[in-house]
Amino acid sequence: MNVARLLVLVLFAMAGCRCIAQTSGPPLAVRQVPAKSLPVPTDVSPGMQAVIAAPLRTGWDVLWKTGGEWRAAANDAAAKTIETLPAMRERLHVTVKPSTINGVKVYVVTPDAIPTEHRDKLLIHVHGGCYELSPGEAGTPEAIMMAGLGHFKVISVDYRMPPDAYFPSALDDAMTVYEAALKTSNPKNVAVFGTSAGGALVLEMMLRAKQLGLKMPGAIAPGTPMSDVTKTGDSFYTNEMVDNVLVSRDGFCDAATTVYAHGHDLKDPLLSPVYGDMHGFPPAILSTGTRDLLLSNTVRVHRRLRQAGVEAELEVYEGQSHAQYSRDDRLPETKEAFGEITAFFDKHLGH
Amino acid sequence: MNVARLLVLVLFAMAGCRCIAQTSGPPLAVRQVPAKSLPVPTDVSPGMQAVIAAPLRTGWDVLWKTGGEWRAAANDAAAKTIETLPAMRERLHVTVKPSTINGVKVYVVTPDAIPTEHRDKLLIHVHGGCYELSPGEAGTPEAIMMAGLGHFKVISVDYRMPPDAYFPSALDDAMTVYEAALKTSNPKNVAVFGTSAGGALVLEMMLRAKQLGLKMPGAIAPGTPMSDVTKTGDSFYTNEMVDNVLVSRDGFCDAATTVYAHGHDLKDPLLSPVYGDMHGFPPAILSTGTRDLLLSNTVRVHRRLRQAGVEAELEVYEGQSHAQYSRDDRLPETKEAFGEITAFFDKHLGH
Repeated sequence: MNVARLLVLVLFAMAGCRCIAQTSGPPLAVRQVPAKSLPVPTDVSPGMQAVIAAPLRTGWDVLWKTGGEWRAAANDAAAKTIETLPAMRERLHVTVKPSTINGVKVYVVTPDAIPTEHRDKLLIHVHGGCYELSPGEAGTPEAIMMAGLGHFKVISVDYRMPPDAYFPSALDDAMTVYEAALKTSNPKNVAVFGTSAGGALVLEMMLRAKQLGLKMPGAIAPGTPMSDVTKTGDSFYTNEMVDNVLVSRDGFCDAATTVYAHGHDLKDPLLSPVYGDMHGFPPAILSTGTRDLLLSNTVRVHRRLRQAGVEAELEVYEGQSHAQYSRDDRLPETKEAFGEITAFFDKHLGH
Repeated sequence: MNVARLLVLVLFAMAGCRCIAQTSGPPLAVRQVPAKSLPVPTDVSPGMQAVIAAPLRTGWDVLWKTGGEWRAAANDAAAKTIETLPAMRERLHVTVKPSTINGVKVYVVTPDAIPTEHRDKLLIHVHGGCYELSPGEAGTPEAIMMAGLGHFKVISVDYRMPPDAYFPSALDDAMTVYEAALKTSNPKNVAVFGTSAGGALVLEMMLRAKQLGLKMPGAIAPGTPMSDVTKTGDSFYTNEMVDNVLVSRDGFCDAATTVYAHGHDLKDPLLSPVYGDMHGFPPAILSTGTRDLLLSNTVRVHRRLRQAGVEAELEVYEGQSHAQYSRDDRLPETKEAFGEITAFFDKHLGH
């Protein structure tokens, strides 16, 4: 192909904003979207503008292939996260203590002041990180935010990860903590929350609890859940290279999940809970952002919940990529997101 | 510039997926997103797949400049819509009769069967079309769907449009009908709904009702509201050339709205209601889609409502562009969307 012809094709691809109809059966017509420049939204706080303006996550396209490689990468990232925690705990007036529950490592996160109506409530937190990242204390930031901004006691599950254990180890560990909680608390006073892989784990826990005939908690808050790890979901395409956290459906998070799945069918609802039967789930509040690579997989869960007759609220935050509502506890958008979850828990727990 | 150099630049623009940081003050860093191909989502109904696969709206970039030009274009489009209405009315078992209320043209849309609990309820419909399109009977499809799928009596306002009248004529006419409804119905039994410009008008009506000290209705359903006509809202950029209905913030709908505004300040909350004070608004259900050019301007209204303490639900439909939840009454997604609105009205009306 000569250069001039290639140029014509490339320019056509960039400028071509009409659909290309393929009338001879599947795949259906593909829409060609030209290259574009996205300004930083002006209708969010200055702090959130900085978060949105940040470049694509460093290493988004580094695709480790073994549990050992992921653990090394996770430990490097965790060290940096852990450095930020003492100041955050101080800002939010919470104490974090490591413990174990029936052999599972946890962190007990306690706010200095717990209002009377929250003293019989217990939140279980399942951290995110593509089933591979945020080991140990690095998994606690979201739990610290929930405890500090919502004034609840939180138990954060430090579930096993590769190379120590593979699917369904994270779910097993989270269930161990949930079952223990059912013995000490009225299930109606328990909520379970988490973001990304943590959001998926919250949904997977409900599916497993149904299988086991366990009581449901009073409410759940699955934040931008990795509810479909088969690369199905329209925002995997529309928000590719738009989301500066996950970046691409073929990026680090997919690679990490594949290692955790360890050959297990990715469409199993215990890995892709959007395919699970959600009848009987407790009231749920979901959070995502307009630039989130998992926007579709959050709204799809919302639809499945509603179709199953579950009371489910959806919050979508302007301009945010994956999980940026929990990026910095000092931003008004973070306070807003945890405020919504707190209000939802206050409405539904204890009833 | 020689061809080879241009090719290099073009290829760079397509492949460049890193942010360009501009450290010397505003504008903030702009994200460069390469050209991409969007497959049709597989996780929606075949009928909705066809809607999503359709090419960009014909004439999306035809920017008429006068009310007269818009009226001619609107009449052409309306004739095609009106052809489809008899079959739709028959499918949905509704009757449509033209009438006037205090000088304002309306269509009274009545389902053949109205359940007992809906007999004292009245819905007011404000059609969309960028304040310029869908005159006369062409404005009734959404009212027919709501009446037929939800089994409510609906009054659809055929408000004046350019060149007969300009801002705030649409709002004035909708208010005339609303005030008349308050005299015959308990406000708690009245709901107001509409999509796009109709969704904005619903919000504008609530702002105007507050100004006038009128009672609020029992519930509202502003669908993907044109809540900000100043081109602010992140999805004006992220979903540009992705949404096959509105297509671009610089497309036909912006041009039409500018003609309607007739020189009035576009940031006036009676044109851009996202800037209005929403305290005291009635419970609201909002609908949009992940590809909607107005995704941001729907979720921003949701946030403003929630910040004002209003009970507000958000529904986001997978893969849909602007207002595609009301494109075809035969699709399961349409039934789902109107089912959500019906359930919301059933929950809130009469209380």
